Amino acid sequence: MKALGPIPSGFGAVDGVLELGGSPVTRWVEEAGSTPLFLYSADHIRRRVAELRSALPVRIALHYAVKANPFPPLLELMRGLVDGFDIASGGELEIVRGAGLSLAQVSFAGPGKRDSELQAAIEAGVTLNLESEGEAARAIAIAERVGVRPRLAIRVNPSFDLKGSGMKMGGGAKPFGIDAERVPALVRTVIDSGAQWRGFHIFAGSQALDAEAVADTQAQALALAAELAQQSGVPLPHCNLGGGLGIPYFPGDTPIDLPLVGERLAAQMAALPDVLRDTEFCIELGRYLVGEAGVYLARIVDRKVSHGEVFLVTDGGLHHQLAASGNFGTVVRRNYPSAIATRFGAPVAEEATIVGCLCTPLDRLADKGGFPRADAGDLVAVFCAGAYGASASPSSFLGQGPAVEMLV
Amino acid sequence: MKALGPIPSGFGAVDGVLELGGSPVTRWVEEAGSTPLFLYSADHIRRRVAELRSALPVRIALHYAVKANPFPPLLELMRGLVDGFDIASGGELEIVRGAGLSLAQVSFAGPGKRDSELQAAIEAGVTLNLESEGEAARAIAIAERVGVRPRLAIRVNPSFDLKGSGMKMGGGAKPFGIDAERVPALVRTVIDSGAQWRGFHIFAGSQALDAEAVADTQAQALALAAELAQQSGVPLPHCNLGGGLGIPYFPGDTPIDLPLVGERLAAQMAALPDVLRDTEFCIELGRYLVGEAGVYLARIVDRKVSHGEVFLVTDGGLHHQLAASGNFGTVVRRNYPSAIATRFGAPVAEEATIVGCLCTPLDRLADKGGFPRADAGDLVAVFCAGAYGASASPSSFLGQGPAVEMLV
Repeated sequence: MKALGPIPSGFGAVDGVLELGGSPVTRWVEEAGSTPLFLYSADHIRRRVAELRSALPVRIALHYAVKANPFPPLLELMRGLVDGFDIASGGELEIVRGAGLSLAQVSFAGPGKRDSELQAAIEAGVTLNLESEGEAARAIAIAERVGVRPRLAIRVNPSFDLKGSGMKMGGGAKPFGIDAERVPALVRTVIDSGAQWRGFHIFAGSQALDAEAVADTQAQALALAAELAQQSGVPLPHCNLGGGLGIPYFPGDTPIDLPLVGERLAAQMAALPDVLRDTEFCIELGRYLVGEAGVYLARIVDRKVSHGEVFLVTDGGLHHQLAASGNFGTVVRRNYPSAIATRFGAPVAEEATIVGCLCTPLDRLADKGGFPRADAGDLVAVFCAGAYGASASPSSFLGQGPAVEMLV
Repeated sequence: MKALGPIPSGFGAVDGVLELGGSPVTRWVEEAGSTPLFLYSADHIRRRVAELRSALPVRIALHYAVKANPFPPLLELMRGLVDGFDIASGGELEIVRGAGLSLAQVSFAGPGKRDSELQAAIEAGVTLNLESEGEAARAIAIAERVGVRPRLAIRVNPSFDLKGSGMKMGGGAKPFGIDAERVPALVRTVIDSGAQWRGFHIFAGSQALDAEAVADTQAQALALAAELAQQSGVPLPHCNLGGGLGIPYFPGDTPIDLPLVGERLAAQMAALPDVLRDTEFCIELGRYLVGEAGVYLARIVDRKVSHGEVFLVTDGGLHHQLAASGNFGTVVRRNYPSAIATRFGAPVAEEATIVGCLCTPLDRLADKGGFPRADAGDLVAVFCAGAYGASASPSSFLGQGPAVEMLV
């Protein structure tokens, strides 16, 4: 039997059925009218934001990275909870516009911004995190052409990375941002262009569970921001310290020590160098805000035994949950947390492999896990489905189409 | 410098620009109006089918696995070229219906068929490849309810796999098909139900480049079909021998020896046991028919240097080319064949990494390859993009949306 990832805290059962948003998930499935279904818990997101507000220094604004989950009702919920949004494409600009977010609170990072995307963002008053000197030149020219004073920040490629992070965004040659040593010259170019100077975006990695590593990286980012501001010779209006806080997905993972991150950051805020005294700071989180709030539900269509092994075949699969299937940026496949939602909390009775409905051996949601006995008609839950699920999976694969999503 | 995969044969240049369908690809980009763009060459597909017809015994019918590329104009082209189609979902059933294909030529395999999909397939006269006893019972009950005599075949889970295949579909416990030893009993159940008995589907793996291994597997499939037909005590009307023929993607890969596969299969056909004397045979190919006919084109938006490394940042990426980015079922990332389409055939001038526009380090189309010097505005081509590209990638990721597709 292979271990399953840890089920996030806050999930219980009503009459043996997984509960979410105050009701058994079977109620939401009925309301949705079909499976598979992504359920996102508004309460869970509110609690997570409250934990962050309580742990972090009040000076640190909280931004949401839309890419983690761009579901419009979830963005509307976020509007009342966070201080700003980060987008990664012109498509996401349209999504946040549609969700009624204030575009002055939005910044746009991404290494391959087209001219049309730069123009739309400049016209909307969105802050551009410039990723190269070439992009800066294009943005300045476009702003001049459309007659709008652009809001420009610089994404810095730091020489450090976030230790133990699932995804490294800094350290060495990268397609993201501008190498630190070239930043001061570009700051002067931006200011000389007459643009509104918005500061730095320093992002060294994501999905880290080690609080000390996150705190060390934040300290390095602050030191780098101070050094670059000093060299630039102008005050730094704003600094996005990136994200980095991860969530437990796999057996043995434990939650990050958020109070420790907060204490270390508070100490750093108390000892800021002069050049950062008036700087506004934010951290930008996606997965940490919404990842554990989501559950993916699929119905078991068939229970079959092959050479003595039990397979629970569902109507879901990697077309909605690519990362959970182990096929998105993972080298060794490990099990996400999962359960039989309609027998939640029942004792383990057998070893079973939960697969999707796709005709490919890649489509595995849980490999040889321990579950209560389940049959066709039962619902399977895959946890940690709130981030990089629906929008980060190939929903058209094998003609399947997207899952329903609900915020409850 | 890291090696790139081999560019498929049949691609040349006109005035230094990659040619496809008799024109430089810049013409098709202009016609499409935007990048990224998938281009599929009808000529390439026709040539591939002709090669197969010439190499394979005339008794072997040729089926197309729609999942490889369900682009409707491509399916319409296929209608005139192959003898049947295999689908993997109710969604694909609607796609083939929309493309005007004869549904009597269609079979439907997939481990998680919902009742609604079974019903739609039965009513359409599609052959169901039954994946379990439970699915057989559901199909028979549904057919009775709707008053249609169903066309039923059995997908066999063989005890052998395809050696050297990129994806193993047989050998040991699998969610696909029914373990061979349970097949004869199910054949009798199907026949006793009054269904139209359609035979076996035996699929042991895919994406193999070793012709001997493919031929050995076909021989094993034939022996297994004979044994199961004998045990079932009824003639075998049809046998789908699966696919397995792969295409070269990576450095060092060489094309499969198709004439050898054909010769070995002809010898097997000449020595069929009595019980298979009147059986119709087919092989079912997806990737081998269309994979090398496709090219993915993206435009370079930015050329940047970070710590001495050159990055060509394009407006495409893993949201259209998940497999090429190395994030779909691959353990070690290797480079697909790629080139600067607007400097096709020009000598290598530098080492460069081609990335997509997504804000993630996973989004790499070519890692440290050798290319002619390219700048913003140039087009990048990723080859072998005709199968498992557009439909097998998370096109909504980061708000990007799908690429344009064209058959030329």
